[in-house]
Amino acid sequence: MSFSLTVLGSSSALPTSKRFPSAHVLKIHEHFFLIDCGEGAQIQLRKFKIKLGRINHIFISHLHGDHIFGIPGLLSTFSLLGRRTTLFLHGHQELQYIIDFFKTYFGKDLQYEIKLVPFKANKQAQIFENKHITVETLPLRHRIPTVGFLFKEKKKTRNIKKEAIKNYNIPIKDIIKIKNGEDFITQEGIIIPNTELTLSPYRSRSFAYCTDTLYHNKLAERIKGTDLLYHEATFLECDKKLAKQTFHSTAAQAAKIAQMANVKKLILGHFSSRYKNIELFEKEAKVIFPDTEAVEDGKEYSIDLKRTDT
Amino acid sequence: MSFSLTVLGSSSALPTSKRFPSAHVLKIHEHFFLIDCGEGAQIQLRKFKIKLGRINHIFISHLHGDHIFGIPGLLSTFSLLGRRTTLFLHGHQELQYIIDFFKTYFGKDLQYEIKLVPFKANKQAQIFENKHITVETLPLRHRIPTVGFLFKEKKKTRNIKKEAIKNYNIPIKDIIKIKNGEDFITQEGIIIPNTELTLSPYRSRSFAYCTDTLYHNKLAERIKGTDLLYHEATFLECDKKLAKQTFHSTAAQAAKIAQMANVKKLILGHFSSRYKNIELFEKEAKVIFPDTEAVEDGKEYSIDLKRTDT
Repeated sequence: MSFSLTVLGSSSALPTSKRFPSAHVLKIHEHFFLIDCGEGAQIQLRKFKIKLGRINHIFISHLHGDHIFGIPGLLSTFSLLGRRTTLFLHGHQELQYIIDFFKTYFGKDLQYEIKLVPFKANKQAQIFENKHITVETLPLRHRIPTVGFLFKEKKKTRNIKKEAIKNYNIPIKDIIKIKNGEDFITQEGIIIPNTELTLSPYRSRSFAYCTDTLYHNKLAERIKGTDLLYHEATFLECDKKLAKQTFHSTAAQAAKIAQMANVKKLILGHFSSRYKNIELFEKEAKVIFPDTEAVEDGKEYSIDLKRTDT
Repeated sequence: MSFSLTVLGSSSALPTSKRFPSAHVLKIHEHFFLIDCGEGAQIQLRKFKIKLGRINHIFISHLHGDHIFGIPGLLSTFSLLGRRTTLFLHGHQELQYIIDFFKTYFGKDLQYEIKLVPFKANKQAQIFENKHITVETLPLRHRIPTVGFLFKEKKKTRNIKKEAIKNYNIPIKDIIKIKNGEDFITQEGIIIPNTELTLSPYRSRSFAYCTDTLYHNKLAERIKGTDLLYHEATFLECDKKLAKQTFHSTAAQAAKIAQMANVKKLILGHFSSRYKNIELFEKEAKVIFPDTEAVEDGKEYSIDLKRTDT
């Protein structure tokens, strides 16, 4: 069961020849979640061979152009590919204007529904759940209403050993109880302890996406212990005044958030086109938080499946 | 003095991993004209190192998404780069809705004017001229109002030889007359024939851009003798029914237009993503019109400067 993030675009407002504007795909099991949709997102999806038909939910952090100008092209492409299933866009209420504009001028033959699931940007709230995960908003501090997203796998049950079912002839009705930690009593009245029947459950994995935002402590509390944190680093510390003015973060500030939140790994993106050497971001952040990586378009960051007792 | 076309995108409605949607830059002297602006046009402009500041005019053939979804991103980028000079968009009247939508939601801090110069799609008319060139619309046959564009250099004067000015001590006031073909009479009353003083003028170069369109004979008359013709070839002849249904052309049909118009060179683009082997387009067209090339994104097609007597 996969849980991995593919970066489609890692530039800030001005794309470069190597970095597209913000867009990411989180693959969880067979579900692909698109997070932000900057210009060219559909081109990157094709380039990195990500199946468009698997995308049913798009999460939009905020309504700046570099995070949404890829939406019209993607919506058109879905239509041309014969999409019939509803597409859910999770975003600020005003995203409806963009959807409506698209539908009016370009959506004449649309055969699928585009449904906005609006959220408030000023509070942390669960905005989505399916069998495997929940998604919460993370209020951020930017020039316009902006949120991050926290994707968390739900708590998992213990895994029953196949040979135990066979050996003790366990009926189906008892399997769920055993998965939830109960012991099993055989027909002969012998108690078989749960630990003998099961493996400890897989750990619930998590990913936090935080862009665009000013540095603020509170964010760290909200993403405590997250496995993978994507945090914007538009600037380096030498330009921290500019970061403050434009409501963005530096690499060092992103690292400080990662450190305080005690996340497992930090990835940096949303780099300003003014910097030619992106290694400097990694270098600056690593002083504070060693397990940091500056992302590249097309790179995939996977979180391994591990049992809670490993 | 350059006259060259750079292809930024050569896919049809569905981009591929190697071909962006329609966008082209025609460089004439120091002026860069953007022709159509599909998604990712600004990314391609950067990739192919084309100076954005040189673009003051954008010509839009029609309002299908694959020809215009790059506009919002490009307008934003111009703004971020501090543009102050007016940008002229030449297109169908309805393009105003797109400009207005952009300005309302994304153009709050815009420091430059965006001016639509509307044209009628149903007749051939001159829509632009500067010192060097004129631009005419070419009515095409597509599902919505669509035009091609014919860029033509203006007729050029003869070039005066530097040594003639020196040898005969020609005053500045006589230079324009001589450039226009007059002889020169020296102070001693000797007539110096114009051919001794000048070189024949450079040929006026021309480029015709024709996409998206059904095959129709009339187009050939309108582009007679053009140096370079870009004609769409969305389909191959084996799918000519589909071409007709969707108001597009096949490679053979494009070649027939090139042949009838007696153009110097034909380049094909706007390929449907259904074809994996683009060489087939070239092959099909070359049977009818040998000097044909199937374009690639990033490729530049230059028209050499030649004197009329060469």
